[in-house]
Amino acid sequence: MSYLGRSIKRVDGLGKVTGRTPYTPDLVLPGMVHAYPVFSNIPFGRITAIDLAAIKEAPGFIAIILAADIPGENQVGVIVHDQPLLADEVVRYVGDTIGLVVAETATDAHALAELVQVKYEEYEPVLSMEAGRAGRGRLLHESNIACSHRSVRGDVEAGFSSSDLVVEGTFTTPHQEHFYLEPQSCLAIPESEGGITIHGSLQCPYYVQRAVGGALGMSLARVRVVAAPLGGAFGGKEDVPSELCARAAVAAMLVGRPVKMVYDRRDDVQMTSKRHPFEMHYKVGVNRDGRLLAADVLLESNAGAYATLSSVVSYRAAIQALGPYRVENVRAISRAYYTNLPPSGAFRGFGAPQVCFGHERIMDHIAAELGIDPVELRLMNLIRPGDITSSGQRLDHCAGAEKTLTKARSTSGWLKRLPAGAGRYREGWGVATCLYGNGLGAAGWRMDGAGARLQLLRDGSLEVAYGLTDMGQGAITVVAQMSAEAVGVELSQVRVLPTDTANVPDSGPSVASRNVVLTGNAILDAAEDLRNEMTSTAGQLLKCPPEQVEIEAGRVRDLQSGREIPLAELAEQMFVTNRSMGALGWWHAPPLDFDADRGQGEAYFAYSFAAQIARVKVDTLTGLVEVLKVWAAHDLGKAINVAGVEGQVEGAVSQAMGWALTEDLRMTDGRVDTVNFSTYLLPTFTDMAAVETIIIEEPEPLGPWGARGVGEPAIIPVAAAIANAVSDALGVPVDDLPITPEKVLALLDKADNGGLGTGTTAIGSHG
Amino acid sequence: MSYLGRSIKRVDGLGKVTGRTPYTPDLVLPGMVHAYPVFSNIPFGRITAIDLAAIKEAPGFIAIILAADIPGENQVGVIVHDQPLLADEVVRYVGDTIGLVVAETATDAHALAELVQVKYEEYEPVLSMEAGRAGRGRLLHESNIACSHRSVRGDVEAGFSSSDLVVEGTFTTPHQEHFYLEPQSCLAIPESEGGITIHGSLQCPYYVQRAVGGALGMSLARVRVVAAPLGGAFGGKEDVPSELCARAAVAAMLVGRPVKMVYDRRDDVQMTSKRHPFEMHYKVGVNRDGRLLAADVLLESNAGAYATLSSVVSYRAAIQALGPYRVENVRAISRAYYTNLPPSGAFRGFGAPQVCFGHERIMDHIAAELGIDPVELRLMNLIRPGDITSSGQRLDHCAGAEKTLTKARSTSGWLKRLPAGAGRYREGWGVATCLYGNGLGAAGWRMDGAGARLQLLRDGSLEVAYGLTDMGQGAITVVAQMSAEAVGVELSQVRVLPTDTANVPDSGPSVASRNVVLTGNAILDAAEDLRNEMTSTAGQLLKCPPEQVEIEAGRVRDLQSGREIPLAELAEQMFVTNRSMGALGWWHAPPLDFDADRGQGEAYFAYSFAAQIARVKVDTLTGLVEVLKVWAAHDLGKAINVAGVEGQVEGAVSQAMGWALTEDLRMTDGRVDTVNFSTYLLPTFTDMAAVETIIIEEPEPLGPWGARGVGEPAIIPVAAAIANAVSDALGVPVDDLPITPEKVLALLDKADNGGLGTGTTAIGSHG
Repeated sequence: MSYLGRSIKRVDGLGKVTGRTPYTPDLVLPGMVHAYPVFSNIPFGRITAIDLAAIKEAPGFIAIILAADIPGENQVGVIVHDQPLLADEVVRYVGDTIGLVVAETATDAHALAELVQVKYEEYEPVLSMEAGRAGRGRLLHESNIACSHRSVRGDVEAGFSSSDLVVEGTFTTPHQEHFYLEPQSCLAIPESEGGITIHGSLQCPYYVQRAVGGALGMSLARVRVVAAPLGGAFGGKEDVPSELCARAAVAAMLVGRPVKMVYDRRDDVQMTSKRHPFEMHYKVGVNRDGRLLAADVLLESNAGAYATLSSVVSYRAAIQALGPYRVENVRAISRAYYTNLPPSGAFRGFGAPQVCFGHERIMDHIAAELGIDPVELRLMNLIRPGDITSSGQRLDHCAGAEKTLTKARSTSGWLKRLPAGAGRYREGWGVATCLYGNGLGAAGWRMDGAGARLQLLRDGSLEVAYGLTDMGQGAITVVAQMSAEAVGVELSQVRVLPTDTANVPDSGPSVASRNVVLTGNAILDAAEDLRNEMTSTAGQLLKCPPEQVEIEAGRVRDLQSGREIPLAELAEQMFVTNRSMGALGWWHAPPLDFDADRGQGEAYFAYSFAAQIARVKVDTLTGLVEVLKVWAAHDLGKAINVAGVEGQVEGAVSQAMGWALTEDLRMTDGRVDTVNFSTYLLPTFTDMAAVETIIIEEPEPLGPWGARGVGEPAIIPVAAAIANAVSDALGVPVDDLPITPEKVLALLDKADNGGLGTGTTAIGSHG
Repeated sequence: MSYLGRSIKRVDGLGKVTGRTPYTPDLVLPGMVHAYPVFSNIPFGRITAIDLAAIKEAPGFIAIILAADIPGENQVGVIVHDQPLLADEVVRYVGDTIGLVVAETATDAHALAELVQVKYEEYEPVLSMEAGRAGRGRLLHESNIACSHRSVRGDVEAGFSSSDLVVEGTFTTPHQEHFYLEPQSCLAIPESEGGITIHGSLQCPYYVQRAVGGALGMSLARVRVVAAPLGGAFGGKEDVPSELCARAAVAAMLVGRPVKMVYDRRDDVQMTSKRHPFEMHYKVGVNRDGRLLAADVLLESNAGAYATLSSVVSYRAAIQALGPYRVENVRAISRAYYTNLPPSGAFRGFGAPQVCFGHERIMDHIAAELGIDPVELRLMNLIRPGDITSSGQRLDHCAGAEKTLTKARSTSGWLKRLPAGAGRYREGWGVATCLYGNGLGAAGWRMDGAGARLQLLRDGSLEVAYGLTDMGQGAITVVAQMSAEAVGVELSQVRVLPTDTANVPDSGPSVASRNVVLTGNAILDAAEDLRNEMTSTAGQLLKCPPEQVEIEAGRVRDLQSGREIPLAELAEQMFVTNRSMGALGWWHAPPLDFDADRGQGEAYFAYSFAAQIARVKVDTLTGLVEVLKVWAAHDLGKAINVAGVEGQVEGAVSQAMGWALTEDLRMTDGRVDTVNFSTYLLPTFTDMAAVETIIIEEPEPLGPWGARGVGEPAIIPVAAAIANAVSDALGVPVDDLPITPEKVLALLDKADNGGLGTGTTAIGSHG
């Protein structure tokens, strides 16, 4: 292979490092005006009046858009229709959007939006998951349960009965704010013939197309959405941009001018979705050797004010509740509760990092109880080819589960690690494993398709269009590599077009580590047609049978005679003999046989596997945790861009370190207190752990060149490995994230007072 | 058929009539700067020095781009490589571009460009075709012959020998300026990753892509060209925009900012291409009945300073020199000469209106000599199915030649026309017929392909991309109609995407009335794939065999049970069952068997036919000609948009009236004197003739739904019919265009002095 499995510079890197890449806020158009939302400033209540007197005469004021101005449907919920595009009756969180002020300048729009006086009848808000679960008082929606899922197999009670040991633990994970560098932003441009074009910082252009079409009551063909270069997303620009864009679109159509809207950081943090906080109760039965026999898992999460993508998160949490382990008897229940807080939604991993914290902490509890090495305990229970997952899916291609773990162990020197010691600084080691179902899964496989389009030009260069987006993960580069490889052109001759709904058929959302598998296969599909034309023409030029032609990296060769011509010559010949030089490819996930009632069966068409080991140093005086190193072993089938994989893993480690240690989203009465970089502590370069990325390549039969996604798998085990390492260092179970210095010190106090160790375990009744 | 053969409002009409359509000059981008050319102000000479002192310190000055700054090739000739992108040694006409000044504002750029002092060694210019033909003095290029073509068959001398009468005539046609309402303009935007995007007022985005790629030495895949809405083109934006865009692209890459360039009218008229002036000598032998036996035709044209598209014009002129008539013995020679005048180039009809003036004037001379009714003479000689054209092509589908003429005759009341009379006002009637080879013809069939792409959306609406452009002729509307018809969606649910090189493979130029046939067939090709997916899914939904499904105008019906579902339901089902909802279509012209040496064989894959009759009134006191009515009968196989056909015909009549009567491009020493609307007299609404469009539909076997193009056929016979009518009114042959009042008065003087009638005829030697 010419371009795969190597480290390739990002094809979009130059513009980004030189500052020339035009992000959405950089876009300027003639006649463009600016919008800013009028946000609710109470968490729960009924709107009784909106006083516009103060703004209507203000200089720069152009229009205010309220719910009544929406020509189409006042609804923007992506799965459940529970979210008004503009609140007209009830507001459900601080940040709920009531209207949009349009003004000549962004400054005017922002200032005027704050002058709008909204009067409310206030309701008692539901400000915690406990309150949501209790379901007392006024409900946010028809029920306070946003969604629930289950995955049940075997006989859990019997499993516990036959266990030698039953271990229980409660594990909690917090909100996480995406804190992409570029806030939410969009530009809506009314077209002269009545349609509209949207440019925006968005992951899922086809979602936006549907939302805008719905809000405007307009044919989808008249709504064109272009994904501008993204300054980060992480799931935070999956469904939220649909809200912004649909609102801006309504404004643009009403004022007849291009409307730009860019959130400031404070409002972005306040109103956009976050990672679901989870409260997880694990009860696991094992035999004396450590073999898992039964698991009863309750996963509860805080959905915030609207469902958004809670059902996807909840579904994946239930399916992956036991990670990559074989367990015959399982009951995993997952539930999300509405609260009057900002909505929880899509965030890299979709519930998987949360449940990984659960299953990997309980494994360490079990290991401690049984005195078994944590890696050994995991190896004993990991699925192997032919095994059935805890959600009832037989996996024939899962050798990576074991390989990632043994390779992480050997590379890290796990077996030679030293005890934590007892001084001020204590080192600890932790391990965590995970699996990750690629794509939309059983709930979404019917829409799990994607397209790609190839266009060969007369000089042998290649244009590529794809339907997913590059949100920083390096999609453009791997798309270029896969296209160059599939067609046989030089990588430098490939141009990947900006993602645009007009380019390829609806390819679904850019989520769930879909790009490599779906776009890659679509490229191969398109390349087959194009290569047929190419080899047929080449055979004529080289006077040899088409089967005998090799086209690779810009060279066209008769394998028998060795005669060679440049691809440019072949392309020109194709053009002047009227060959079709374009091809449209499509790939969709195979049908999945899944029993949704029991949550059992083919949950995903393919799985990625990972094992990570973290080594930490804890300062027992200050409570500060330093992550010294993370060994991250990932089975991704085939690394397309090695540097890209390393970048994904290093970025994931950094992002998970923040979630595990320092990021501490605080709210008061539903209002976020930590709305900027000085209070919401993202890890910086100086906090960064050393990371060693270990690539395992067990080919995925459904993947292009055997590849699978790694974008999300990279983040899933990190926090669990760190928490396990901190537990190891302190000799105290660390079951609650983030592990702030205050918590570390409190845990040490507790340990000194004798609360150490086995507080969450219970001895089984027999054996 | 649901949407074909009806009158449909233009789908791009709303923006145009409300002024909301954004033309290229309306585009504004952040950081955008402006360029203006430094033109040569002498017709011929060598550049000896360029003094930039005056501009380099001027406020607003950013850069000047000269030939040495071009990173790639300094060459922009579209067929012959005779034209530098920026003149660095020799300038060959007033308007030749030497450099580009880039400044902060358009006003600055324009003013600074005029301050650049260029010094020359001046050469004796070639200012007329006679001088070019004489070839004395300094040659413009290697030869003063820009190109020559021939079409020769039979034995011409023997043909004349056996003729009863040999008639000769010399016919001249002038320059014509396109005078599109929107001057040439473009915007070149450097991309952050090193590529470039061009928006421009241009007919041929793929030409521009090649020119820009060549000038920048850049892969074609890195050059994206978007055709902005066009405010007129008529061929004037076929190759000329390649010059502008390539120059602006060089400037944009060098200054690293978007560069806009908009010509002012004066410079547009001075420097852009025009219709070739022709001097035509026809010598035709006939028998006593009027049967054409031999023709010797010399077609000489003025190419101006560069070849541009002269060879296409010259080729078509030679092939179509005898129009739709059978002649066994033919020698047609066509030659274009270089002169130090603005280049002649593409203009609606490509030489066909010129030779139509020749063959239709000589027919009227013959008719007058023999005393045969001009329509009868033509009917006797018109090709009929199975006949061979004068360029040696057997036509099986040419019944329209006769049908258009007989229908024009009957509709106009030709047979009941009155004599001209002898008073101050004299009425006259004239007839003209033509054929028009569709597409690029034998010289270009290898590149005569085009693509179309269809994308069905979840709500049953449809996006359509095509590779040609709408320059005002209504392409977008017929593309929408053909797509709606081919797929079965409602016309209101179709959106045609702006033409963009990234949308479909290189589809060649938007010229030669190619759109209906090429794009239409490509749409049918794409629709076949898409309809397969649609009917298969519909069969599942309706529980019937796919063959039994009818999809039309947004309704999906089981033809047997009559059960019906909306297309939106079908589309949604296709989406949620992962069907591919896109298709890429391609069509190319069939191979043509043509002998280029003799100019004989299959010159074009299909022909359009037309016959027009004009009725005029001449004021013998003032010399003013009023065109009272034109009956225009056109065989276009199938009218896609009846209103569109009428619009094409009416526009063509107006444009040809200008060429025939009032447009009189004057130059002094190579400098155009008539550079604006007050001196170059375009017909206005008040000058306009009544037009009756007569549609004949003889299905074209290769055309989609039997259709052929009408854009150019519409203009071809008009001037000839008018000139024949004026000749009829005055009783004086009118063999020179334009027929200005001065010429009319001069002809009347000549007639009074006895020079009337047969001055250009000669009696054959026998019979």
